[in-house]
Amino acid sequence: MVNLNIEEIMPDIEHLIEDGNSGALLNILMDMHPADIEEILNRLKKEQRLYLFNLLPTELASEVLSELDTPVVDQILEEKTEEEISSLVDQMDSDDAADVISELPEDKAARVLDKMTEEEAEDVKQLLHHEEDTAGGIMAVEFLAMPENATVNQTIEKIREMRDEIDELYNVWVVDEHGHLIGSVSLTDLVLAHGNTKLKQIMDEDLHFVRVDMDQEEVANYFRKYDLVSVPVVDEHMKLVGRITVDDVVDVMEEEGAEDLAYMAGAPDEEIMEESTFVLSKARIPWLLVAFFGEIVSAFILNSFEATLQQKVISAFFIPIVMAMGGSTGQQASVIVVRGLATGDIGLGDTKRRLFKEFRISLFTSIFFSALLFGVVYFWDGLLFASILAFSMFVVINNAAIVGALIPLTFKRFNIDPALAAAPFISTSNDIIGLLIYLSITTFALRMF
Amino acid sequence: MVNLNIEEIMPDIEHLIEDGNSGALLNILMDMHPADIEEILNRLKKEQRLYLFNLLPTELASEVLSELDTPVVDQILEEKTEEEISSLVDQMDSDDAADVISELPEDKAARVLDKMTEEEAEDVKQLLHHEEDTAGGIMAVEFLAMPENATVNQTIEKIREMRDEIDELYNVWVVDEHGHLIGSVSLTDLVLAHGNTKLKQIMDEDLHFVRVDMDQEEVANYFRKYDLVSVPVVDEHMKLVGRITVDDVVDVMEEEGAEDLAYMAGAPDEEIMEESTFVLSKARIPWLLVAFFGEIVSAFILNSFEATLQQKVISAFFIPIVMAMGGSTGQQASVIVVRGLATGDIGLGDTKRRLFKEFRISLFTSIFFSALLFGVVYFWDGLLFASILAFSMFVVINNAAIVGALIPLTFKRFNIDPALAAAPFISTSNDIIGLLIYLSITTFALRMF
Repeated sequence: MVNLNIEEIMPDIEHLIEDGNSGALLNILMDMHPADIEEILNRLKKEQRLYLFNLLPTELASEVLSELDTPVVDQILEEKTEEEISSLVDQMDSDDAADVISELPEDKAARVLDKMTEEEAEDVKQLLHHEEDTAGGIMAVEFLAMPENATVNQTIEKIREMRDEIDELYNVWVVDEHGHLIGSVSLTDLVLAHGNTKLKQIMDEDLHFVRVDMDQEEVANYFRKYDLVSVPVVDEHMKLVGRITVDDVVDVMEEEGAEDLAYMAGAPDEEIMEESTFVLSKARIPWLLVAFFGEIVSAFILNSFEATLQQKVISAFFIPIVMAMGGSTGQQASVIVVRGLATGDIGLGDTKRRLFKEFRISLFTSIFFSALLFGVVYFWDGLLFASILAFSMFVVINNAAIVGALIPLTFKRFNIDPALAAAPFISTSNDIIGLLIYLSITTFALRMF
Repeated sequence: MVNLNIEEIMPDIEHLIEDGNSGALLNILMDMHPADIEEILNRLKKEQRLYLFNLLPTELASEVLSELDTPVVDQILEEKTEEEISSLVDQMDSDDAADVISELPEDKAARVLDKMTEEEAEDVKQLLHHEEDTAGGIMAVEFLAMPENATVNQTIEKIREMRDEIDELYNVWVVDEHGHLIGSVSLTDLVLAHGNTKLKQIMDEDLHFVRVDMDQEEVANYFRKYDLVSVPVVDEHMKLVGRITVDDVVDVMEEEGAEDLAYMAGAPDEEIMEESTFVLSKARIPWLLVAFFGEIVSAFILNSFEATLQQKVISAFFIPIVMAMGGSTGQQASVIVVRGLATGDIGLGDTKRRLFKEFRISLFTSIFFSALLFGVVYFWDGLLFASILAFSMFVVINNAAIVGALIPLTFKRFNIDPALAAAPFISTSNDIIGLLIYLSITTFALRMF
């Protein structure tokens, strides 16, 4: 009854693996939670990992496999025959089984499905029809549905029968004769009711449910909004087709949060467990290409202002500050919009209000930083160039804030993930526009005064 | 039994508010989930918001208040007397009550506590002792603890008594005579057991729990790792002191994810509902100040290379690309480290391995982009400057990747939130170092060849 510190036991585990002491290892592993075994596997090198995994008895191996990240699953399954995979997958919840099988090459997946028990294979095939990032893609088909005339005692008997199939049950769902969802009974209500009570007497008809094609991010927001633990999934005719539990939603939130974080930083949504330098580089390069070609455009712009740069070399010194302040302001304006759009706290209907708000903020900050820059440059070079830079900074910051807020909203309008907007597009376009503004103002002012 | 579309009913709600038709409004609101009322309030202007909230009967108002974001709660409570606040708070779960009271000015909070029922006030005072972002700060003190010799029937009777106090129950916790946690019984097990069975016969002794001082982000990772729905909170003597349910954890995940996202973008973790331009600007300016002074340093560096810039004006054209490529690479390297540290997938023990991995990736990408840049500059200016830029790009990208991965790991070592490292520090220091590298190489090469 003590929480395990994986970091502390790792050296022992590694020693036992080196010694090939499979008996002692199994003794330790059999008492562990699959999630702890997962953590141990993640920390091992590939060879050791495969050795340890292969020690596990099928049922435990199957549970551990459900927990592992894709690159590690791929590594393990590569070495397994189709028979072995099908017996591992047979033991899983349908949603986990579908996840594993969807990772396999198509022909291998088909052969694994052939070797599985018919019932489980049918469930998995059904689940594979749904888009990966929808309610259908994360739901399981193991749930408890009862007719409204069933009694509490009948329901309890049914729970007993299904105990092996469903780990944790939070609600019993009530369906009509066509399988349409009509109500829900919480386990608490079931405990408190008398054995002969009919479900229709205690069921809650005002229940929460999601459609099978709902986006998984919306499903997560739905759980969060209504503080749910499990939710029935229905098709377009309100027929009950699956259940989503909060542990799946917690994983979705982690996943979507990580994706937004990566995109916001101009990076692909990569797997922490991915080891291949080639795979990782190949995923990161396209993001950098946007910056690369954007800044080649910047170079051409600077080239066209060559006369100005030669006439007043000091104007080159402030290229970094113009770029950085525009870039940072744009990022600040975009991140709150990206996050708000993800949680649903900001809708497209709020576009005007949000732009106006960002403009009010940028007006304030731009005046602050223009004044600050004026002070610095005044002592460095004098009144004229200080005025040029202060005015440029003012325009650049306000422009960057509007661009930063507008691009994610525009992406959303065209159904593109707003988080994709942030890093490469907003910062590169702000760099280009910022330099244009700065050098145009400088050139104009130098000619005039 | 249909999911509500708030956006669609907003115009009607606003009309009814304008007409002052409180009867019709109440009719609509009384049938709604508090979370839907929260969403409506968020979309209203301040005056309308206060009008609508004041229509709600105390119990519903109390539930809605628990859902609202801090800036809106502040707005509403500002207008309320201490009596009104205490009667609203009296109806809440202890954790929500503590959250609301902790937002009040200290003297007002004390007076509200005085006016609350003694039992609830005691609970809240206890909760207020804990740090806001620890298990103690998010737990509630309403839970069901039974002695190990209690029977299933006795437990069910107890659940019936506590029904009003605890909305949703997932586990019954078993304690010894000193209140120490010794086991857990799931509601499913309770349903399946016979009435005279003693809890000690069916309890799970191998249970999950968290310490009251555990960081809330760790609590969230703990829930996610073990797929939990509720967890008992214990003090240093294993005495049961509270419970955390998954809906609180889902909120924590949202909160921590939003914070990381904001920090990563160089922005404060601001409330979407915050309206004050002054509050928002004041929070954003410090982040921009880091960039501002960093780039003033860049200006001084460029100044010290004035001769080079004058001798070869084209070298100024490539300042943006050197900055942007270094900045982007650094961000890419840092975001995966920041995320891994947050989820616990990367530990400080992985420092060397992670740095080596980032170096392998940056080696690959730097060769790619150096070659690309060489091609562009070769046709623009010739072999010498193309070689200078390609070599600079190579050094800058590799350096930026190491800095990007190293700074968050270093922050973590000193117990500073690694996400804070990313935007201002990594990108500003990469700008400065990048320019130094680029101009030093250029100056050296121009002198040599």
